[in-house]
Amino acid sequence: MSSLFNGGISVSLFGESHGKGIGVILDNLPAGEEIDLEKIGEFMARRAPKKDGTSTMRNEKDIPEILSGLYNGKTTGTPLCSVIMNSDQHSSDYGNISHIARPAHADYTGYLRYNGANDPRGGGHFSGRITAPLVFAGAVCAQILEHRGITTGAHIVSVRDVKEPRFDPMNITAEQLEAIKKRVFPTFSEEAEAAMREIINDARMAQDSVGGVIECAAVGFPAGIGSPMMDGLENIIARLVFAIPAVKGIEFGNGFECAELFGSENNDDFILDGDTIKTATNNHGGILGGISSGMPIIFRAAFKPTPSISRPQNSVDFKELTTEELIIKGRHDPCVVPRAVPCVEAAMNIALVSALMEHPNI
Amino acid sequence: MSSLFNGGISVSLFGESHGKGIGVILDNLPAGEEIDLEKIGEFMARRAPKKDGTSTMRNEKDIPEILSGLYNGKTTGTPLCSVIMNSDQHSSDYGNISHIARPAHADYTGYLRYNGANDPRGGGHFSGRITAPLVFAGAVCAQILEHRGITTGAHIVSVRDVKEPRFDPMNITAEQLEAIKKRVFPTFSEEAEAAMREIINDARMAQDSVGGVIECAAVGFPAGIGSPMMDGLENIIARLVFAIPAVKGIEFGNGFECAELFGSENNDDFILDGDTIKTATNNHGGILGGISSGMPIIFRAAFKPTPSISRPQNSVDFKELTTEELIIKGRHDPCVVPRAVPCVEAAMNIALVSALMEHPNI
Amino acid sequence: MSSLFNGGISVSLFGESHGKGIGVILDNLPAGEEIDLEKIGEFMARRAPKKDGTSTMRNEKDIPEILSGLYNGKTTGTPLCSVIMNSDQHSSDYGNISHIARPAHADYTGYLRYNGANDPRGGGHFSGRITAPLVFAGAVCAQILEHRGITTGAHIVSVRDVKEPRFDPMNITAEQLEAIKKRVFPTFSEEAEAAMREIINDARMAQDSVGGVIECAAVGFPAGIGSPMMDGLENIIARLVFAIPAVKGIEFGNGFECAELFGSENNDDFILDGDTIKTATNNHGGILGGISSGMPIIFRAAFKPTPSISRPQNSVDFKELTTEELIIKGRHDPCVVPRAVPCVEAAMNIALVSALMEHPNI
Amino acid sequence: MSSLFNGGISVSLFGESHGKGIGVILDNLPAGEEIDLEKIGEFMARRAPKKDGTSTMRNEKDIPEILSGLYNGKTTGTPLCSVIMNSDQHSSDYGNISHIARPAHADYTGYLRYNGANDPRGGGHFSGRITAPLVFAGAVCAQILEHRGITTGAHIVSVRDVKEPRFDPMNITAEQLEAIKKRVFPTFSEEAEAAMREIINDARMAQDSVGGVIECAAVGFPAGIGSPMMDGLENIIARLVFAIPAVKGIEFGNGFECAELFGSENNDDFILDGDTIKTATNNHGGILGGISSGMPIIFRAAFKPTPSISRPQNSVDFKELTTEELIIKGRHDPCVVPRAVPCVEAAMNIALVSALMEHPNI
Repeated sequence: MSSLFNGGISVSLFGESHGKGIGVILDNLPAGEEIDLEKIGEFMARRAPKKDGTSTMRNEKDIPEILSGLYNGKTTGTPLCSVIMNSDQHSSDYGNISHIARPAHADYTGYLRYNGANDPRGGGHFSGRITAPLVFAGAVCAQILEHRGITTGAHIVSVRDVKEPRFDPMNITAEQLEAIKKRVFPTFSEEAEAAMREIINDARMAQDSVGGVIECAAVGFPAGIGSPMMDGLENIIARLVFAIPAVKGIEFGNGFECAELFGSENNDDFILDGDTIKTATNNHGGILGGISSGMPIIFRAAFKPTPSISRPQNSVDFKELTTEELIIKGRHDPCVVPRAVPCVEAAMNIALVSALMEHPNI
Repeated sequence: MSSLFNGGISVSLFGESHGKGIGVILDNLPAGEEIDLEKIGEFMARRAPKKDGTSTMRNEKDIPEILSGLYNGKTTGTPLCSVIMNSDQHSSDYGNISHIARPAHADYTGYLRYNGANDPRGGGHFSGRITAPLVFAGAVCAQILEHRGITTGAHIVSVRDVKEPRFDPMNITAEQLEAIKKRVFPTFSEEAEAAMREIINDARMAQDSVGGVIECAAVGFPAGIGSPMMDGLENIIARLVFAIPAVKGIEFGNGFECAELFGSENNDDFILDGDTIKTATNNHGGILGGISSGMPIIFRAAFKPTPSISRPQNSVDFKELTTEELIIKGRHDPCVVPRAVPCVEAAMNIALVSALMEHPNI
Repeated sequence: MSSLFNGGISVSLFGESHGKGIGVILDNLPAGEEIDLEKIGEFMARRAPKKDGTSTMRNEKDIPEILSGLYNGKTTGTPLCSVIMNSDQHSSDYGNISHIARPAHADYTGYLRYNGANDPRGGGHFSGRITAPLVFAGAVCAQILEHRGITTGAHIVSVRDVKEPRFDPMNITAEQLEAIKKRVFPTFSEEAEAAMREIINDARMAQDSVGGVIECAAVGFPAGIGSPMMDGLENIIARLVFAIPAVKGIEFGNGFECAELFGSENNDDFILDGDTIKTATNNHGGILGGISSGMPIIFRAAFKPTPSISRPQNSVDFKELTTEELIIKGRHDPCVVPRAVPCVEAAMNIALVSALMEHPNI
Repeated sequence: MSSLFNGGISVSLFGESHGKGIGVILDNLPAGEEIDLEKIGEFMARRAPKKDGTSTMRNEKDIPEILSGLYNGKTTGTPLCSVIMNSDQHSSDYGNISHIARPAHADYTGYLRYNGANDPRGGGHFSGRITAPLVFAGAVCAQILEHRGITTGAHIVSVRDVKEPRFDPMNITAEQLEAIKKRVFPTFSEEAEAAMREIINDARMAQDSVGGVIECAAVGFPAGIGSPMMDGLENIIARLVFAIPAVKGIEFGNGFECAELFGSENNDDFILDGDTIKTATNNHGGILGGISSGMPIIFRAAFKPTPSISRPQNSVDFKELTTEELIIKGRHDPCVVPRAVPCVEAAMNIALVSALMEHPNI
């Protein structure tokens, strides 16, 4: 569903997994921002399926065509529409439309919500495929942030019980964030990559899937941006992150850990670094009262295991009201986490640009 | 900042801690809903400070006056405005306006955001006091939900390292939820209450504070309500919950735990209970694809320790750019969690009514 | 109903004619704007009933109390709420609630819209009285405009068939606009005033009422502000002006006359005045493509005659479905136009500030 | 710019005259509405250029491709995106980008608004061409209205000083409204057509253009739909109608004429027609207090003469700040009014569906 953030940019996503095309309109973008299409392509390639066993073999070329809002390589300030045509649809994998609800999918809830009129093929509008235009939007916003000296990035901090260290919340650098984007499997260490790949592969071999956690950060974001109450940075970021299918939780700074601390442990003292105000620690994750503090912005999002698994599951035909055994065919990622990394970054980028647009002189 | 949820109700909160008054406008409410003012008072009393050492001694009577939108005891359908006048302000506790940033507060970020023009007394618009009209709004929405057979409720699942069991996600009942509202300290067990009170009291004696986690649930909410992408139930709930000061994380269903599971463990099989479709487990927390499944809706929110602690802290005068020792005077809750329970319920109630208004015939 | 303009300020009006109070929340205002309360009072006094026979004798003191958003005489940037308590309600004038629809009023349509739950006393939320907080909002915005060298003003150009000349669209001055605000009956010429007063008085003596047209202008508004399509200046102004009860038409620049011209007559040539770009004529009324041209902004709004007239009317009891003779008692303006002048200015002021907020550095 | 109507549908238009494509996303549409694509084509053909001398010879095939939101011929309830690729662009007609402002166009204001980054070719996003997706949206909404027994239609009531009678506001029928849609030149009488064609042709031969007025009506719209204040039917319709380039005024019911009447003349008495409540006259144009009365809804919109005329005009180069003689080349309608008729209907249709969505059970 389309969304307008008060005073910020608006993002209208559209499309169904097996329809003609998917895309996005971005509105209220600043005018005159140079957009490098090659960089957009690189950003989107990070979400594309890999041939390394971690993701579906569906061959999505996903070349976005920009229909409006870009002129002479710069944003016009009027609505920017980007479309990705669906080519490799393999509808036959889905055969006759089934009314057997796939567990942990939105088949049943979507059917109720739209009185059975929604497009059910491949999850329709609920498909993870709709994250492609979200990532496009995030790639555009990444460049707008870059023009202002702001860098964002994300990495996998866990797949099932395999973890790698979190960002150092005080000392994240733009270089670190850029470096990780170059890695096919976005972890810092190769050890973590190897262990995570192993557990993903094991899940795949066991006709199963596995979840994980992604951590995202922004550096260079100016202090004093955001708003209190319902339009704070945390509110906007959370609203966008929960638009990514499979997200079940989000936490900022030290997150749920703060609930186990004393105030004297959790409070971040303010300090001076020359004439710059900083905090001595960064438990708050760069946001206080919905507004940026100038410290790195940090959050983590929890992803559930891919709902589509090949092993037989018990379910219900919601039209016939019968219990059925369900065998899901088709191609599915055994773990969505690696490909979700640019999605999470996209959510961060959109939120930050939206908040900046309330202060357009920045 | 005021907020409109697409197709739902709008909630406009206003006020500063030490200004003349605080309040809220609720718009797009259904017309003709009976509102029991006594119940509103009971709901708000759960947020009021207690004289049991867990909260500030500030004597807030907080009697909301409804100026519009209610006629003959029923909602009119036109905007409902409720005002709470600030009487017991004790401005002198704050003395001369300080520009020494209180750690973990929004003094510094708010000053930047509003070019120093915001009301700094007692945190101004950033104060936890603005949750009083939020709770009022939630109390109104609770009755609208009640008319439709929907019950919400919340309890404390942890204070620092003291925990009590979570809700049984399959078997929560309206009776359970109502019972816990009657308890001054909203836990299920008296053992948990005793242990939590002890750690809160210890923190208070140590001039310190402590955080915790609140769990909230809804039962009786019909399946098929909500929307995909950015206007899903999780998105709206998260946006509202992060409007409560001190919240740093939110998770739905089994939340961050899902990231450690295999799909075969995490997926909730669909089953039939007579003609009713249910799930065999409720890891998804009652929401799939942003839309309700008919199962209990469940989320948890993490609260940081109260930022205001009496012991000396290091900070910075953000106007003079000097380092300063800060001594916070005045009355402050050593733990916001007990009083935050109705705030969290309020966020749930507002989100659910907002989503229902897209289907007004329910 | 509350309203948010994309990227601009939000205005949430509330209240019913005979409820406890009415008011408004203004959100997204710029921070740090000095607000002179005496000037607010003067602006609102222009809407107050006069004792000269042109308006109702209802004694509305209408002293707005600002509950939030103002600190040390300046806007804080957080929501500004203003409340006017209803004191002089004379509910007995309305006696038992009638279900006989007053012609040209919203009694019947409001009853249907709200399933009979709306407050019908004195028109409830549909009452012209709700323009008091609208005028308050406009008075705040007038000062924000004044700080940027922008002046708005309005005058009566016709009452029934009595007309006075329109503004000279090329040569309106701030002084002219200010001068007219000082007149109790806002026309330029005393001759027009005398003739209009006479026809209003005649209508009153005949237990009748009369309509008219108000013209509004802004000078000093910078070029390049606004947006194309649905969020243009004309769109926003029109949306606000139609919120004033009794408005049935709006036209910008030469308005409906342009439909009778050739392009060669209607097009405004661009010219240079030193280094400033102007137009040689101002048929376009200062707005091209939804965006300001730097020329004076001009529009006119048509007001129908006051619906409430004392003479017997034929109508229907919409609850009993019977035809009835209706006698309207109580106090009513024989012509709303004089008191509507500041309402129209308020709509202009709110729209202009809202559009400016998309370019906050102005 | 994209727009969301509170509680209603959202309409996001995008595109530039000479960009790759133009289109629209419609969101919050009801699910399961059958959409007849042939009827969409017929509706859009009414806006297409004619080869009869009244419009440009630009050959716009304008076949909209629906990328999403339609499945098995029915709306899915998820966002419906329609794209029209620009094929016949003739960019060379515009040659080197000129900075000489075309009088009555948005060249200069758009340049300022977007700091010179907007696409200037053929007016860019300000082009009348963007009404093609608006008309598409209106054609979809027409069918949603038709499913509920609601018919809308429009006719030309004047071109310059040639007039035909207005609708009879009491007795408009769906048949009348349908009949006029079948006419290439949408007037009721052939006499009016002939006279209007003559004056348009004269203007064309004189290298000039001419304006006019369009009247639009809806019958069958249920009573009780809409909202008071800023989200009334008049407000929404006006906001949409002013999105059509060249509109300079709008009036509802008897419009500006009401300003010349006494209340006793203007008030519409309520009457009973069996058990149905009607009004004896329809000066109010079917809307009271922003809410439908059940009577035909009627408004008129004034269109200025086409700004582009071939004869030399005086203007300014806004980049060089020099005065210049301007010769506009290319193809332009001598009168936009005939092709604007379906645009005006589209605005009405979108507004009515949006208002209905607040009462989805209708």
